Amino acid sequence: MQGMMQDWQLTTDRILRHAKINHPNRQVISRQVDGSITRTTYGEIYDRARKLSSALVKRGTKLGDRIGTMAWNNARHMETWYGIMGIGAVCHTLNPRLHRDQLVYIINHAGDNIFFVDLSFVPILEAVQDELTSVEYFVVLCDADQMPETSLRGAVCYEDLLAEGEDDITWGDFDENTACGLCYTSGTTGNPKGVLYSHRSNTLMAMTAAMPDAMNINGKDTCLMVVPMFHANAWALTFTAPMIGMNLVMPGPMMDGKSIYELLDGEKCTISAAVPTVWLMLLNHLETTGNKLPHLNEVLIGGSACPRAIMETFDKKYGVNVVHAWGMTETSPLGTVSRIEPEIAHLPYEEKLSYRLKQGRPPFIVEMCIVDDDNKELPCDGKAFGKLMVRGPAISNAYFGGEGGEILDGEHWFDTGDVATIDELGYMQITDRSKDVIKSGGEWISSIDLENAAMGHPAAAECAVIGLPHPKWDERPLLIVQLKEGMEATPDSFREFLSDKIAKWWMPDDVVFVAELPHGPTGKVSKLDLREQFKDHVLSTI
Amino acid sequence: MQGMMQDWQLTTDRILRHAKINHPNRQVISRQVDGSITRTTYGEIYDRARKLSSALVKRGTKLGDRIGTMAWNNARHMETWYGIMGIGAVCHTLNPRLHRDQLVYIINHAGDNIFFVDLSFVPILEAVQDELTSVEYFVVLCDADQMPETSLRGAVCYEDLLAEGEDDITWGDFDENTACGLCYTSGTTGNPKGVLYSHRSNTLMAMTAAMPDAMNINGKDTCLMVVPMFHANAWALTFTAPMIGMNLVMPGPMMDGKSIYELLDGEKCTISAAVPTVWLMLLNHLETTGNKLPHLNEVLIGGSACPRAIMETFDKKYGVNVVHAWGMTETSPLGTVSRIEPEIAHLPYEEKLSYRLKQGRPPFIVEMCIVDDDNKELPCDGKAFGKLMVRGPAISNAYFGGEGGEILDGEHWFDTGDVATIDELGYMQITDRSKDVIKSGGEWISSIDLENAAMGHPAAAECAVIGLPHPKWDERPLLIVQLKEGMEATPDSFREFLSDKIAKWWMPDDVVFVAELPHGPTGKVSKLDLREQFKDHVLSTI
Repeated sequence: MQGMMQDWQLTTDRILRHAKINHPNRQVISRQVDGSITRTTYGEIYDRARKLSSALVKRGTKLGDRIGTMAWNNARHMETWYGIMGIGAVCHTLNPRLHRDQLVYIINHAGDNIFFVDLSFVPILEAVQDELTSVEYFVVLCDADQMPETSLRGAVCYEDLLAEGEDDITWGDFDENTACGLCYTSGTTGNPKGVLYSHRSNTLMAMTAAMPDAMNINGKDTCLMVVPMFHANAWALTFTAPMIGMNLVMPGPMMDGKSIYELLDGEKCTISAAVPTVWLMLLNHLETTGNKLPHLNEVLIGGSACPRAIMETFDKKYGVNVVHAWGMTETSPLGTVSRIEPEIAHLPYEEKLSYRLKQGRPPFIVEMCIVDDDNKELPCDGKAFGKLMVRGPAISNAYFGGEGGEILDGEHWFDTGDVATIDELGYMQITDRSKDVIKSGGEWISSIDLENAAMGHPAAAECAVIGLPHPKWDERPLLIVQLKEGMEATPDSFREFLSDKIAKWWMPDDVVFVAELPHGPTGKVSKLDLREQFKDHVLSTI
Repeated sequence: MQGMMQDWQLTTDRILRHAKINHPNRQVISRQVDGSITRTTYGEIYDRARKLSSALVKRGTKLGDRIGTMAWNNARHMETWYGIMGIGAVCHTLNPRLHRDQLVYIINHAGDNIFFVDLSFVPILEAVQDELTSVEYFVVLCDADQMPETSLRGAVCYEDLLAEGEDDITWGDFDENTACGLCYTSGTTGNPKGVLYSHRSNTLMAMTAAMPDAMNINGKDTCLMVVPMFHANAWALTFTAPMIGMNLVMPGPMMDGKSIYELLDGEKCTISAAVPTVWLMLLNHLETTGNKLPHLNEVLIGGSACPRAIMETFDKKYGVNVVHAWGMTETSPLGTVSRIEPEIAHLPYEEKLSYRLKQGRPPFIVEMCIVDDDNKELPCDGKAFGKLMVRGPAISNAYFGGEGGEILDGEHWFDTGDVATIDELGYMQITDRSKDVIKSGGEWISSIDLENAAMGHPAAAECAVIGLPHPKWDERPLLIVQLKEGMEATPDSFREFLSDKIAKWWMPDDVVFVAELPHGPTGKVSKLDLREQFKDHVLSTI
């Protein structure tokens, strides 16, 4: 028997329509490519996004068409999202920092037939457009008088395209499972794979993100959204903000400490969301200038683990609460949020901090467990660590075009590729990436834990641990150290330093020193390169 | 094109499962029928609800079966809800204050084949059971040693039934649109009609209720849920509380001021939800005893309009924020919540209070508009008032068994039967019930506004306004007054009193005095009785 409730599909157009009706004058403030700041409202964004939809339909866009965007966080980019999604086309966001070959692969694989590009990125697209097999025309996100000379085929200025549209257009009116957004994620092997969001997944995630145990935001907040709209669904904020009528401040291309501070202070932002690097730059700026953050209540940090020092400095020096979160492109992206639960509220600061440094607890729409290599569920005791598996309505069930084949196990769990512990109170902590964990004698050694321990050595500038083959134990750890300038150390001094900090069987078999550790494009140590570099190293314990 | 996100149905069993995994030790505290207080946890409720499901399945319960409950708010009642819903049967809550004929009609109409009854209500069911055509057996919600001698057919003690169940049972695994709850609402004409909730509607409403712009609750809160579980879905709290891990305190049968105070104070409740009458009783108790409310942050008031005095007293004397909300059985029930939006945050107290006394603004999943008699949308200017129409995924599209026929208009709007204004900031205010509004010369006169104005007259104890037929104007208002004991007044003194308070054409054609106004079972003036009583009154203006 079916319930007798209305058929009201969870489509993202309803989010902006809700904003248009209920909080049309809440603001969206954007830093433009030229550094200037423009202001608009959800009411205006709604009207303009609908004109964009109308113009696209007139030019032939249909349900299911993929449309690419390469743009900063700004109001036009937001209009583009809703204009595309409202008519059931798929908004495909691209990271401008991608290697040109990956860019070409991704656009062709997605089959984008229109491409929206911010002024800054016109040269990137000009350079590859001859290799793009599906793009029919390009739209440049600028005013008419900013329109550059460009070789982009069919190039049209965004404002001119809008002028082709009418006010009257049907939005929504399709199933909530209709595809809505597309974002490629770089696997460690093979080509990037496309995560295809549905209207339903994005709407449920937007509701979830607002909840008090997640981001805890409402219409009284002003949010500086630093996390890029091309990165993991902008942590749902592009949907949550209009849903709850929160003012949204977008930094455009300027994410240095000074620019971020100017927006936080000038727009009286109460909350912000970004990766740790951004916060490091901001804290450095504050340190230099002596500026404070009187309006900011909370910052959400994700993307990579938040260093303890950032959390402590925000707390103690600026009175800003840091909330640690974890997610990935495949999880839309909110997987966990770390807040102080009542069970630990009485603990001293340092102990609470250890909980806050964990990645946190899942919201209602995320199920989570850890399993061993045989897919046997492991206990939530804060010690056992295993593959982190997730399940939920906003988690991928496959990649675009079926790439990578079946990605769920028999019970519909998605393997995150992370290795984690979950403690008695449900706080999850990432301990490693699956590919980096060292499997020694059937037990796992966390490369990250070992690295963190070794980093305490006074001579260590940076450390990395990889597993190398071992005839008896399968794999054993190799510790690779870059020393601080002018410092010296012996392998034995590292062994001695580690001896009271790790389990005995975790002790690295060898310690080697290098002049410089290799880094990937996001600034992380590249273990891929290290594995290549040390592939012929024979452990001295063999 | 469909998104590539997991098929994860929004079924209510997932809510309790989430609680079992993520906050198993959060408490549910119940006042029993004998006044004692028992404590359990979501973990235990989950285990016991599953045993109940198993026992029901063993005894033959199938997907879609309706199962009645007549019980106070307590942990066993909560287990019963989840035990029934988890296997796709329909939990049908009944109000013990119903007239016995209505009770019989409703149980037979629903076709309940099992009936769960609290100790207090065994006699009520015994008295009507011979007329119940579908109920196969009764379950008494008590311990084995409390089991009464009863003539109820097939009577089984709840704990004995539980003992028949196993731990292993499949929950969920059906479509989220499956029926889940049933609650009859008394129309003004004809028989009561059944609102049939789905798993989807209840789950979406539970997520919505937790959001900062709605109830703003999380796992750090302890909620005294006074609103009965048989009343308008208990304002979603039976679902929201386990979803967010909020401690839940349930008053059982004792809702007097002293008992409510004891729970608020003893359990350190931070939030509570009830109709105005409960709060009046509490405030009287506090006034008498001098007790304070140091733990309570917020009370949610709905069910009928919150009097200004209640809001002011809570604010000024007890430092408790009153949040006014509106909804109905057909809206699952949250329709609007009245909170201070940033646009009015700077206003002086009295002006903010006028906004807070409105019924408030809709959450994302509720669409709302006002229309005139021709279904033409009226402006949101805070002045125009019209029929309040709502739309959304947790709003009825029909009544159980098709009673009442088509209830949505061509654009899927549901007519709430209320008449309201909506202001420029989106705050809705109920001005009347559709059936009570007076239609004079094509314009509407709010009977409630007239009553409130007349109540200011120093001699008025209570006032009611009804419309009577008029050959020229269709309808004109009759003001009916019950004077304060020992007071006298003339019709002219009321006309004079009203003259500078209402539009000239709103002036009642006649003013009549009665010894006592008739009241319905919920304490409201019965306009149905008044219309009957004055059906032969001929207005003096004819």
